[in-house]
Amino acid sequence: MTRIAIDAMGGDYAPHEIIAGAVWAAYEYNVPIELVGKQKDIEVELNKIKQSGFISDCGNKGSKKRIKVNISQLDIKITDAQEVIGMGEHPGQALRKKKKSSIVLAVKSVADGTSDAVVAAGSTGAAMAASLFGLGRIAGITRPAICVTLPSLNKHVVVIDGGANAECTSEMLYQFAIMGSLFSKHILGVKNPRIGVLNIGEEDTKGNTLAQETHKLLDKNKDKFNFIGNIEGKDLLLDSCDVVVCDGFVGNVTLKVTEGTASLLFKLIKKEFQSSIFGGMVGMMAKRFLKNIYAKINYEEYGGMLLLGVNGVTVISHGRSKAYAIKNAVRVAKEAVETGLNKKITEFIQK
Amino acid sequence: MTRIAIDAMGGDYAPHEIIAGAVWAAYEYNVPIELVGKQKDIEVELNKIKQSGFISDCGNKGSKKRIKVNISQLDIKITDAQEVIGMGEHPGQALRKKKKSSIVLAVKSVADGTSDAVVAAGSTGAAMAASLFGLGRIAGITRPAICVTLPSLNKHVVVIDGGANAECTSEMLYQFAIMGSLFSKHILGVKNPRIGVLNIGEEDTKGNTLAQETHKLLDKNKDKFNFIGNIEGKDLLLDSCDVVVCDGFVGNVTLKVTEGTASLLFKLIKKEFQSSIFGGMVGMMAKRFLKNIYAKINYEEYGGMLLLGVNGVTVISHGRSKAYAIKNAVRVAKEAVETGLNKKITEFIQK
Repeated sequence: MTRIAIDAMGGDYAPHEIIAGAVWAAYEYNVPIELVGKQKDIEVELNKIKQSGFISDCGNKGSKKRIKVNISQLDIKITDAQEVIGMGEHPGQALRKKKKSSIVLAVKSVADGTSDAVVAAGSTGAAMAASLFGLGRIAGITRPAICVTLPSLNKHVVVIDGGANAECTSEMLYQFAIMGSLFSKHILGVKNPRIGVLNIGEEDTKGNTLAQETHKLLDKNKDKFNFIGNIEGKDLLLDSCDVVVCDGFVGNVTLKVTEGTASLLFKLIKKEFQSSIFGGMVGMMAKRFLKNIYAKINYEEYGGMLLLGVNGVTVISHGRSKAYAIKNAVRVAKEAVETGLNKKITEFIQK
Repeated sequence: MTRIAIDAMGGDYAPHEIIAGAVWAAYEYNVPIELVGKQKDIEVELNKIKQSGFISDCGNKGSKKRIKVNISQLDIKITDAQEVIGMGEHPGQALRKKKKSSIVLAVKSVADGTSDAVVAAGSTGAAMAASLFGLGRIAGITRPAICVTLPSLNKHVVVIDGGANAECTSEMLYQFAIMGSLFSKHILGVKNPRIGVLNIGEEDTKGNTLAQETHKLLDKNKDKFNFIGNIEGKDLLLDSCDVVVCDGFVGNVTLKVTEGTASLLFKLIKKEFQSSIFGGMVGMMAKRFLKNIYAKINYEEYGGMLLLGVNGVTVISHGRSKAYAIKNAVRVAKEAVETGLNKKITEFIQK
């Protein structure tokens, strides 16, 4: 059965929320878990859950219910790791120095075959570097990329690369398109995913050299997948496309700008309702509806971003992940393992 | 007195809305206007306004009132231009072919000194190319850039370059920072504008080569302006910075992603309220508040983007501009002329 290794020390709310999410996932998906981190800290958290009999404060804004769990019935093992890589550390230097850090040992566990996938909410750079060094690349893949699922009007859109490679070539973006398309098909269940290039105009002569060359390369190979041309930022979230490719710099800016814009709008809505007594009343009644929207666009639903192209499964969760996000990240990891996504990527690349 | 030349034929709602906006501006700001385009079409529109005595259907969602104008008291001249450059045409080719197009003659009018600034809502590429060829660059400026004002939580943020240059060097971004900072100071009234580099992390080692080199260059010159380091997309609209520099590809993606995210959220809110009878009632009550927010984040308020670095004043308006947006674009153009923004840029560059 698929076992998921989790870096119990990574993320703003580690280890408490990470372990709560791990236990929740073990219970809800019936999946064996390997918690990697400071053994004593992990034991303290597990004991708390054991004694209370439930996971409290699961933290996501959508669901505040307590989850009843009988921890003794769950398959949870601990791997001790005394070192932790902090968010501010340089990934490369930290990896060389901290060879027994929780993220390194969690990845090692996948490389060894003890676990099948790793979930990490700590430093994104450290998780990427540890995965790349520890698991290697899928044969034929030049560079792994971060594959992010964003909510769109009626479904989802995949953005790849979400930040692994600040500088890219069109050949890399071509491979990202393949990986993103297979993710969309096998994990999100989209039949014939529409692939687009993130660009600043619809015409193929628009954009920078990278966007133009990528457009050409995808167009030349359009018998292999469903390439639909350029996608502009304004249409990104409006169901016009299933997979959008771009370099990791543009992709990461895009993700964070959507996050920032949504944050601005919710703040403005709150402010507007608070500006009068009638507004306050309407705001109270509207709260429930706005909460539903917040839950829909909340990154916690997607649990994390898959690092595609490494020879293993790594899910990188948001640094602010609480239990609910971690639980969903485990689900994504489990699905990636069980659908054999990497095998499908390998087969496509070798064709 | 400052006269503003307006390409009457450019934009999705030309000439009707463009001319309505021009007349509105002439009336509200007491500014002489030069309408450039097909003389007969312009006369028909002006006659309609003359006969009715007001501008009807001013089109923006914030204000639907009729504006009473006595057109015979306004200083409005017409310059005939029989050719029009369409949105789909290649800017360079179209400019070579259509030497008497409305955008070319509007720019020429500024070059000749007949008018002091040009406002255009047609093809952005054509407006940029016509301005660059017709007006030339400010001495010392390598490349003009599009300067966009976005709404933020409590004020505004300037993004430069918003799309003029898909490929940039750090030296270009350095000049964009200077121009954006002077715009923020003299047009938006920000005392000591905070300048940031749009990047994918806070540390100076983050991002692509361009972002890193720009960070270094700005940091080296920080005695000349208020450089505060890197800005991430999630903080862009939350008042963390006054001027954000990036290349035109990233800038244009950023603008359109903010537009797309806002559009998604308003659609989701509408859908959510429509999902039940109670929701419909709450939605009706909330409408007024949401409208205020829509008006706040609406591009029409800002009227257009300034093309900074050309030896003249060019305001490029959104293709979907209606009268209200055009009126505000004229205001921006007038302010740029009257504050002597270009002279201030020249002085700074020569220092």
